[in-house]
Amino acid sequence: MLTYNLVDGEQEFLYVYLYKCIRDDIIAGKIKSGEKLPSKRNFAKNLGVSVITVENSYEQLMAEGYIYSVPKRGFYVCELKDTGVQPRRISGQGISLEREVSSYIADFSSNQTDAAVFPFSVWTKTIREIMNENQQQLMVNPPCGGIMELRVRIALYLKEFRGMQVNPEQIFIGAGTEYLYSLIIQLLGERIKYGVENPGYPKIAQIYSRMRVPYEYVEMDAQGIMPGTLEEKGIDVIHISPSHHFPTGIVMPIARRYELLSWAAGKPDRYIIEDDYDSELRFAGRPISTLYSIDGSDKTIYMNTFAKTLCSTVRISYMVLPQILMERFYKSLAFYSCTVSNFEQYTLARFMENGSFEKHMNRLRNYYQKKRNRILQVFKDRLRNERITIIESDTGAHFIMDIHTDKTEDWIVKEAMKRGIKMAPLSQYYFGKVPWCAKRFVMNYSSISMDKIEEIAGLLSEIIEI
Amino acid sequence: MLTYNLVDGEQEFLYVYLYKCIRDDIIAGKIKSGEKLPSKRNFAKNLGVSVITVENSYEQLMAEGYIYSVPKRGFYVCELKDTGVQPRRISGQGISLEREVSSYIADFSSNQTDAAVFPFSVWTKTIREIMNENQQQLMVNPPCGGIMELRVRIALYLKEFRGMQVNPEQIFIGAGTEYLYSLIIQLLGERIKYGVENPGYPKIAQIYSRMRVPYEYVEMDAQGIMPGTLEEKGIDVIHISPSHHFPTGIVMPIARRYELLSWAAGKPDRYIIEDDYDSELRFAGRPISTLYSIDGSDKTIYMNTFAKTLCSTVRISYMVLPQILMERFYKSLAFYSCTVSNFEQYTLARFMENGSFEKHMNRLRNYYQKKRNRILQVFKDRLRNERITIIESDTGAHFIMDIHTDKTEDWIVKEAMKRGIKMAPLSQYYFGKVPWCAKRFVMNYSSISMDKIEEIAGLLSEIIEI
Repeated sequence: MLTYNLVDGEQEFLYVYLYKCIRDDIIAGKIKSGEKLPSKRNFAKNLGVSVITVENSYEQLMAEGYIYSVPKRGFYVCELKDTGVQPRRISGQGISLEREVSSYIADFSSNQTDAAVFPFSVWTKTIREIMNENQQQLMVNPPCGGIMELRVRIALYLKEFRGMQVNPEQIFIGAGTEYLYSLIIQLLGERIKYGVENPGYPKIAQIYSRMRVPYEYVEMDAQGIMPGTLEEKGIDVIHISPSHHFPTGIVMPIARRYELLSWAAGKPDRYIIEDDYDSELRFAGRPISTLYSIDGSDKTIYMNTFAKTLCSTVRISYMVLPQILMERFYKSLAFYSCTVSNFEQYTLARFMENGSFEKHMNRLRNYYQKKRNRILQVFKDRLRNERITIIESDTGAHFIMDIHTDKTEDWIVKEAMKRGIKMAPLSQYYFGKVPWCAKRFVMNYSSISMDKIEEIAGLLSEIIEI
Repeated sequence: MLTYNLVDGEQEFLYVYLYKCIRDDIIAGKIKSGEKLPSKRNFAKNLGVSVITVENSYEQLMAEGYIYSVPKRGFYVCELKDTGVQPRRISGQGISLEREVSSYIADFSSNQTDAAVFPFSVWTKTIREIMNENQQQLMVNPPCGGIMELRVRIALYLKEFRGMQVNPEQIFIGAGTEYLYSLIIQLLGERIKYGVENPGYPKIAQIYSRMRVPYEYVEMDAQGIMPGTLEEKGIDVIHISPSHHFPTGIVMPIARRYELLSWAAGKPDRYIIEDDYDSELRFAGRPISTLYSIDGSDKTIYMNTFAKTLCSTVRISYMVLPQILMERFYKSLAFYSCTVSNFEQYTLARFMENGSFEKHMNRLRNYYQKKRNRILQVFKDRLRNERITIIESDTGAHFIMDIHTDKTEDWIVKEAMKRGIKMAPLSQYYFGKVPWCAKRFVMNYSSISMDKIEEIAGLLSEIIEI
């Protein structure tokens, strides 16, 4: 009779161990298909366990289809056809608990937020309030565009700070701008040709490519994208950041904006995606007005994110769809669940409602302005002035720096890397030929530690002054 | 000379108000292109404001491209070509603060989690710990698959509770199973034909359709999907829930599993997507073993979610990719940012690490079993037994109920709706012809309030017993 040594199985429930023993023997062919298993009572007696243990094992084997029961006769092994399937080899490799830690002293390619500027205490307090007061609401599946409370707050914010009149129903919240992009592509369909700014944010073209829609790079002049080029190339949808182009920092003048809007109004399927990713972080004056706010033809898809204004690791972005696209979205894409957790949506809504967001934004602007001034001052003091040119714009958490040297860009990047500094050459944001010779770098300073700025400048001077 | 009444603008910064006045006059053509603006000093004197106010307005107008300056001569209005663009009409519609509130007494179509079962206090405590202890880490952009801490915890969980040996690098965390689906489609490419279980979860086909990849419905027998049909239809990738099919509750027997694995091993591009969405909520015995754990050919993409085990509004799901697909992912899709917020990833990792998740799962299983038993008992007591048949499976938060009546399914749905009860006919989960005549309903009970179950049964009896 079938027997197993159940002492080995002490660490598990007995019945689980027994189930596994029988299962493995069936898989290995040691118990043949059609074979009758011992009766529960006899088997239990033989193994020295309770009948319930055998019963539980048999039930698990039945549930998974290894055995079947014939009423009043007993339990039989199912037929497993020889499908030639190999059993899974368990690799010896254990689960590693190591984490990667960035070893840079300074990473000028990163948009990460400095922990010093995240409003930890207010955010934690707000979460606690929400978790106490909104328990029922937190469990309610939100509409596809996100919870109404947050969309209303965003609409009010856009009205007050960006001069935009939008209805909360036009606002769609999603886990990052990249995700919203995939929705836009699904919304507009594949018969659309997308234009990508050159230079620009490299992920945009990667998303078009992975989503398998046609796209083409479009050159810019000093005012941004040219409508004539869009006509020539047969572009239908163009992604731009008119208030602060990434990475060049160009602010598109109002005349060019009107020309672009006129281009968009020329055909029904033309749209402009306005990515307003960091224009709220303008230090001088107020933020540049949005294209959306002057667009009377309703051809602008407005996108924004809390990655810069809160932190890059809270994944909350939103888009404002024109009326016609909003209706299309509700018709064809409303089945999608919102990708942002209710917990964070309610927390952010409350954070905006009670004035914390506005306070935080003022603090943030102040912080970045000071940080930028300090970095530029240290660079000015420590680096030879004829070797660098800073190209400033008043916005956001990066500036452009030209390095005047005979060394190649590659050489600079490698030498910096040796010293623990990651540089981001502007040429990386170009597709194809780069139209100048200067060694030009994008300097994202949001993640740079102020305590190390003297050291960083010292290391840079070693490279620049050779 | 140009003049404005700056008293109206009290509510805003004076310079912003002045900027808007000038801007609107330029747009309206009241100030012509090429026209010279008053000097800052004269204008300030004339308006009775400080020079700095005028200076700030001019700077904003320059930044946005409405005016330009000629050194030593002054400020001039830019040329705005008549592009025929209409100004945006501001609709009178205000921002509505209303929220939609579900008015159902019982919604059997909803998978929402009952607030009574969410571990609010432990979750809040865990967030607070994370917010205190992990401030630096929280700001670090995670790898595309999610933070290593959480992936390690999930790997350990899968090992202990699902008998699966996976490396954390194979695990990819995303904001919901739907989102992970879009990644799988981008990963496998468009030359793949997808199979959709019929009946099944309707969103799967919707996602394929919106992502514009070829797919076909595949019929099932009592054991699930048939490999022969997959061959006939030329399917490459099939989505199944072998441990607990939705909505029928079928558990795929081991023999059929091997046949399917053998089918998948037949061609390089064939894969099985195993959606293990609720098998952890099994009341009798242990969870059914996964297909992944017996697949020696590495053809199974395993997917799971915390929607059932935590709550449906925390958007955290994950997939385990076979080695070859994992490598392909890192090569072609690693540029995507992880869609789940660091805050919730770290919180969940800690929640799993300190044993809270296991405790919660035990409590949850217990809670659902009691809830299910209570509902079935009340139905048995209050509804005429010859009129209903409950088709039980031991798993998850739904069961199937047949109603025996001459009335149509539509009639039942409408009469229930009148009484505030939302029913989910199984036929809704079928594409095309439904192969039976019974009035069969999927009864999701996770969101049903236990306080109202007597009332709900009473209302159902009014319909069933006519």
